[in-house]
Amino acid sequence: MKTYRKELWFNTEKRFSFVLITEKVSQALKESGIKEGLCLVNAMHITASVFINDNESGLHKDYYKWLEKLAPFSVDGYEHNVGEDNGDAHLKRQIMGREVVVAVTNNILDLGPWEQIFYGEFDGRRDKRVLIKIIGE
Amino acid sequence: MKTYRKELWFNTEKRFSFVLITEKVSQALKESGIKEGLCLVNAMHITASVFINDNESGLHKDYYKWLEKLAPFSVDGYEHNVGEDNGDAHLKRQIMGREVVVAVTNNILDLGPWEQIFYGEFDGRRDKRVLIKIIGE
Amino acid sequence: MKTYRKELWFNTEKRFSFVLITEKVSQALKESGIKEGLCLVNAMHITASVFINDNESGLHKDYYKWLEKLAPFSVDGYEHNVGEDNGDAHLKRQIMGREVVVAVTNNILDLGPWEQIFYGEFDGRRDKRVLIKIIGE
Repeated sequence: MKTYRKELWFNTEKRFSFVLITEKVSQALKESGIKEGLCLVNAMHITASVFINDNESGLHKDYYKWLEKLAPFSVDGYEHNVGEDNGDAHLKRQIMGREVVVAVTNNILDLGPWEQIFYGEFDGRRDKRVLIKIIGE
Repeated sequence: MKTYRKELWFNTEKRFSFVLITEKVSQALKESGIKEGLCLVNAMHITASVFINDNESGLHKDYYKWLEKLAPFSVDGYEHNVGEDNGDAHLKRQIMGREVVVAVTNNILDLGPWEQIFYGEFDGRRDKRVLIKIIGE
Repeated sequence: MKTYRKELWFNTEKRFSFVLITEKVSQALKESGIKEGLCLVNAMHITASVFINDNESGLHKDYYKWLEKLAPFSVDGYEHNVGEDNGDAHLKRQIMGREVVVAVTNNILDLGPWEQIFYGEFDGRRDKRVLIKIIGE
């Protein structure tokens, strides 16, 4: 069995953004030399997500509006916000999820035709990480 | 280490449906011959889910109403809907999730007493796939 | 390849509670002797979650209020509630998720600085289980 570990670092300009990372995960998989197995990609921070969906800007705006409606930004609206203002970001991340697990087949990410991997940031403008861990052989 | 890969295909009659797939995943596990490991089951499409919950028709109606309330179908209500009408389906799928990872113990899906695996379709009436990838030995 | 399996049991005093389990998962990992691999932690019941977020009591109150707003407890409000009263718990669990997959690196749970693993109970006061399955070598 082989394993491979890699971190990706982000520091987004905006509080809320989605960053396409499929190519970077694919690159890590190539580096690993693993042909068959599983690839875990997870946010290492609790106000961010890794998720799979469509690379379409209209949809990303829909996600922004929808998440803002379900869990609005509010400095005073959360008990978590004592010396913090990111209570909403912890909620948004639960909707979008912490991680994805992607099948590895023949050294390729075994994704459907429209599946793209994104880093979802809900409290950006600081250094944050994603972990890639691949196991297989 | 062994790995096994199988696709399941669906073409649901309705836009929204849940399809019980525990038996099919269990069958794939038997075919794999893998006794101990992990089994990933994921939607390969971004308007569908694989999730685990109860096989109870009342609950499935509750999910339908609830998802429709949180992310209503609307031709005009989403920026994604330019030549599309499935913006809501991309949102619903994030609530229900893309994938499940199930433990494999003694060649059996190591599920709790009421856990059943479902394909969740939010934009059906077309051919769509689920991927099963099992690794272990 | 090695695998390790362990169950954790819970019987919470309240209907809704979060229980910190990072230490118990870490202990299971030590027992396994697995240095590199993946660790699956999942609720075996369909009205409970395993999730990763912050160990901060204000945030946990925010989650409670938020989940109660998105999927309110209601004896009469769900079709599932025929001889049951836990329809809301099945919905809440989909928001918070069934499982987490954590990377294992050098026999340690490869978590970010604030990541803590929780058991999320939405219909407690009965015996329920979490499954830990670790694979690797």
